[in-house]
Amino acid sequence: MNPTNTAPTALESAHGLLHERMLRGDVMAAACPSREILKHLTSRWGVLVLIALLPGTLRFSALRRQIEGVSERMLAQTLQWLEADGMVHRHAFNTVPPHVEYTLTPLGRQGAEKVRDLTDWLETHLPALLAATSADHAPTA
Amino acid sequence: MNPTNTAPTALESAHGLLHERMLRGDVMAAACPSREILKHLTSRWGVLVLIALLPGTLRFSALRRQIEGVSERMLAQTLQWLEADGMVHRHAFNTVPPHVEYTLTPLGRQGAEKVRDLTDWLETHLPALLAATSADHAPTA
Repeated sequence: MNPTNTAPTALESAHGLLHERMLRGDVMAAACPSREILKHLTSRWGVLVLIALLPGTLRFSALRRQIEGVSERMLAQTLQWLEADGMVHRHAFNTVPPHVEYTLTPLGRQGAEKVRDLTDWLETHLPALLAATSADHAPTA
Repeated sequence: MNPTNTAPTALESAHGLLHERMLRGDVMAAACPSREILKHLTSRWGVLVLIALLPGTLRFSALRRQIEGVSERMLAQTLQWLEADGMVHRHAFNTVPPHVEYTLTPLGRQGAEKVRDLTDWLETHLPALLAATSADHAPTA
């Protein structure tokens, strides 16, 4: 927010109206804004960023090391999405070389815990899921 | 599985070894097969298919009506992924016109419940998430 500019932007007005109208989202509805946030939360790298930040604050380079296979570009994009959704807080220190840290907000922590529940389930049930894959998928046309 | 062919396929052998080696998956590891199943579970339409099937069996056309915005092609692809992962069971009846039903397997139901927890959280916290969006994203470069 910019304290010198008290007039709401068009985006802020639209969201204001939305708050008043909407008690909860509906991911089944194509026009519901929850669809866009769901996309960030469940994106390939969004899932892994949220989980990686659960134990605490991390620098960009540490996040990148922890999340195997993510490119610098995709990690930066994912962090921008999650920051824009209010789930990740970015703290840039005025140092040379630049030092940037990322932390889950309280809202982000809640979302990350739900994501962690899902990946925990997946990790512990992986043998059963792979067994299903090989059994169901042998010689189908 | 093909009962007339008792020799395991290369895929089955690889999975067999994996079962023995692997007590649980690790989504942070680029080579872990959990990454591929995570992609299906958290794909744009995978999330919505799993949730839509939680209350019970549905036909293809009913799924398509419920999940706003999904194309016939993407719904078919998503159902194939989830079937291959052992999370969705496909039952085709020998009728004219063809009648095909989809049901969650017990494993799919567990995964779907975790996904539902996540989207429930998102839907109920949507106003807070949108407020964060407008507050954080006003005039950034």
